[in-house]
Amino acid sequence: MELLKVDTIESAREKLIHAMQEKKPEKIRVESNKSLGYVLAEDLLAQEPVPSFRRSMVDGYAVKSADTTGASENLPVLLEIVEEVSMGVPSHGSVKNGTCAYVPTGGMIPEGADAVVMEEYCEMFDKHHLAVYDPVAYGKNVVSVGEDIRRGELVIKKGTRIRPQEIGVMASLGILDAMVYEPWTITILSTGDELVPPFVQPLPGEVRDINSYALKAQAEVCGLKVQNVMVYKDDREVIKEAVVQSLNRSDLVILSGGSSKGKKDATSQIIDEVTDGNTLVRGLALKPGKPSIFGYDRSRAALAAGLPGHPVAAMLVFELLIVWLYKHMTHQKEGPSLFARMTANLAGAPGRATCQLVRLLKKEQEYYAEPVYGKSGLITTFTKADGYLMIGQNQEGVKKDQQVEVFFLS
Amino acid sequence: MELLKVDTIESAREKLIHAMQEKKPEKIRVESNKSLGYVLAEDLLAQEPVPSFRRSMVDGYAVKSADTTGASENLPVLLEIVEEVSMGVPSHGSVKNGTCAYVPTGGMIPEGADAVVMEEYCEMFDKHHLAVYDPVAYGKNVVSVGEDIRRGELVIKKGTRIRPQEIGVMASLGILDAMVYEPWTITILSTGDELVPPFVQPLPGEVRDINSYALKAQAEVCGLKVQNVMVYKDDREVIKEAVVQSLNRSDLVILSGGSSKGKKDATSQIIDEVTDGNTLVRGLALKPGKPSIFGYDRSRAALAAGLPGHPVAAMLVFELLIVWLYKHMTHQKEGPSLFARMTANLAGAPGRATCQLVRLLKKEQEYYAEPVYGKSGLITTFTKADGYLMIGQNQEGVKKDQQVEVFFLS
Repeated sequence: MELLKVDTIESAREKLIHAMQEKKPEKIRVESNKSLGYVLAEDLLAQEPVPSFRRSMVDGYAVKSADTTGASENLPVLLEIVEEVSMGVPSHGSVKNGTCAYVPTGGMIPEGADAVVMEEYCEMFDKHHLAVYDPVAYGKNVVSVGEDIRRGELVIKKGTRIRPQEIGVMASLGILDAMVYEPWTITILSTGDELVPPFVQPLPGEVRDINSYALKAQAEVCGLKVQNVMVYKDDREVIKEAVVQSLNRSDLVILSGGSSKGKKDATSQIIDEVTDGNTLVRGLALKPGKPSIFGYDRSRAALAAGLPGHPVAAMLVFELLIVWLYKHMTHQKEGPSLFARMTANLAGAPGRATCQLVRLLKKEQEYYAEPVYGKSGLITTFTKADGYLMIGQNQEGVKKDQQVEVFFLS
Repeated sequence: MELLKVDTIESAREKLIHAMQEKKPEKIRVESNKSLGYVLAEDLLAQEPVPSFRRSMVDGYAVKSADTTGASENLPVLLEIVEEVSMGVPSHGSVKNGTCAYVPTGGMIPEGADAVVMEEYCEMFDKHHLAVYDPVAYGKNVVSVGEDIRRGELVIKKGTRIRPQEIGVMASLGILDAMVYEPWTITILSTGDELVPPFVQPLPGEVRDINSYALKAQAEVCGLKVQNVMVYKDDREVIKEAVVQSLNRSDLVILSGGSSKGKKDATSQIIDEVTDGNTLVRGLALKPGKPSIFGYDRSRAALAAGLPGHPVAAMLVFELLIVWLYKHMTHQKEGPSLFARMTANLAGAPGRATCQLVRLLKKEQEYYAEPVYGKSGLITTFTKADGYLMIGQNQEGVKKDQQVEVFFLS
């Protein structure tokens, strides 16, 4: 019976997108040189052409190309040098038939010139004249106005997570600030009577808390703003109150823990109560990660999620649903993936999609994916992994040597 | 003649490694929960086993497995319930033949029990007795002490750049701090008479400075510590003094600009002078990126590099030499790559390796690499690219449909 109620990843994603329509990330303006890692919330158009003047691609002489027709080692063309252009200053002269001007790489090409002869093909004939030994074609070594970027051209797409090269483009266009998505804020609550902090030596029956640390780091890596991280013993009323308080302040509230049956019910009840019955997803058809619960709190406009207590399951569900949702809502494109060949057969789980951690091995122009197993799904399986692959719920499995798509964690 | 003096990427790398032997990154201790993005400087060994007590993988009853032999729907085995183990507390009881104890997922398995029957296969017979309907194998649903991590096991390798999962592993093992490499400090100097800051409307002949912004962001992404960023007009003495001052304070000093001939010589002279003649590399057999100069200043124990002024060339040389060197010296493994099929023929450059930016296209279980061209090598070619490929200096080129390795920028 319970299987009938769980959602596939796809249907869970749809429900989350639908619920979060009223909770789309806000747009804020940030300084371009502090925008690394933010996600652009608008298309950036060039307000001016690049280059804004005709530039030379080489150190050489700006000429009228027709003047060089027929030039050769034996019969050089002689041109009068009328100007020496310096970097960073405009050319005030003009090149007419029979004349030329020196221009350094990146320098401004004088009016009238239509090509630049590399200095390697020239020689000073006397103080004021240049011998050109090679003909140059019209337009050669010239970058025209707007040749790199036309005025009004789309230079960076909305949804781009800003990298160093985007910072460079913004600098080149004089774009001093940009509209980006304000990262969703997140509170992470790790729960369990068995949990002790890392600095405590656990007694028999106790374990050190992992999820509050790992999920916090994962949220940071994908660009979310971590507002608060808390660890609670299993006290239903205390946890519920913490969730309510967190929903008041954060866009996302993640509750992890409670994989055992009684606690799963408690998490489910808490999410039901705090969202006023608006639980969207009650279990995922996913291995690992089945005991995942998502609810949307309309009055506080915030998402509450209950993730499994197992760290690997918690991190994978976080990646596949929360990170995915954030990327989707900020128009980011799918993360990087690669195709690799399986080193072993791998069975799927009937009626559930399987998310399998794999290690990548590079051999002779090809990547191989080797499944990383871990009996109890502990976190070390994750540190040995480079990525993960998905086996569909209607797929029996993947075979040794089969080509699979491996995704990297964001 | 000049071609004879330039270094291949490989020989340049070797020279840099050799020079930087006395400048290996220092080791510092950081708190584990603040270590995201740092590079581990020592192997991390588990000081204790995980789990540190026998845990149950399911909600169920801890039993002696031999007791369940022959159990069936028709003929259940009856066991006396002697304990109900709670999460986070030790089991004080012991399971003997004919008895059992309730254990939640993750709970401690009492002494004497050797397997856990899932509660789905049991039913309460009366207040103190359990009916078991299915035999359970020895060891089933039990995670033994040290099964995930043995005491003394290598859990995270030196040279690992710390991700969320490593933070999780450190938390689980009570590793509160770790030795990491102290990032090299870097100063970036962008030079050129033509450069104006992004907020200035360039006059004819002027361009906005890109490199100081893009290289700074690139340094940050790879984990270097940016100490200072400066932009200078082409004044040889001023630049030389700035380089000297920077070498006193930073491990790496990057000078970019000066692609035109006269300026390249000036950069070369400055690096010669400040390193007391210890210029290691005077030009790279690389397209783009030929006018790159590297010197090691022994007295100040710092590397001085002159990169091309073209932003794309500067960023690629930064990636292939500076980032590569930092990763090598901190024992990081090669960055991620994938294999893709070329969408077009691409010629190499005679006598030089070629670094070509490519866009990745995913079609039917395969990635295709499409070269991104840009006449003057401006930065927009970079924003359109997903990665780059290398064509060796003795390689004629790569053919359409050929499989190539595409590297991502760090």
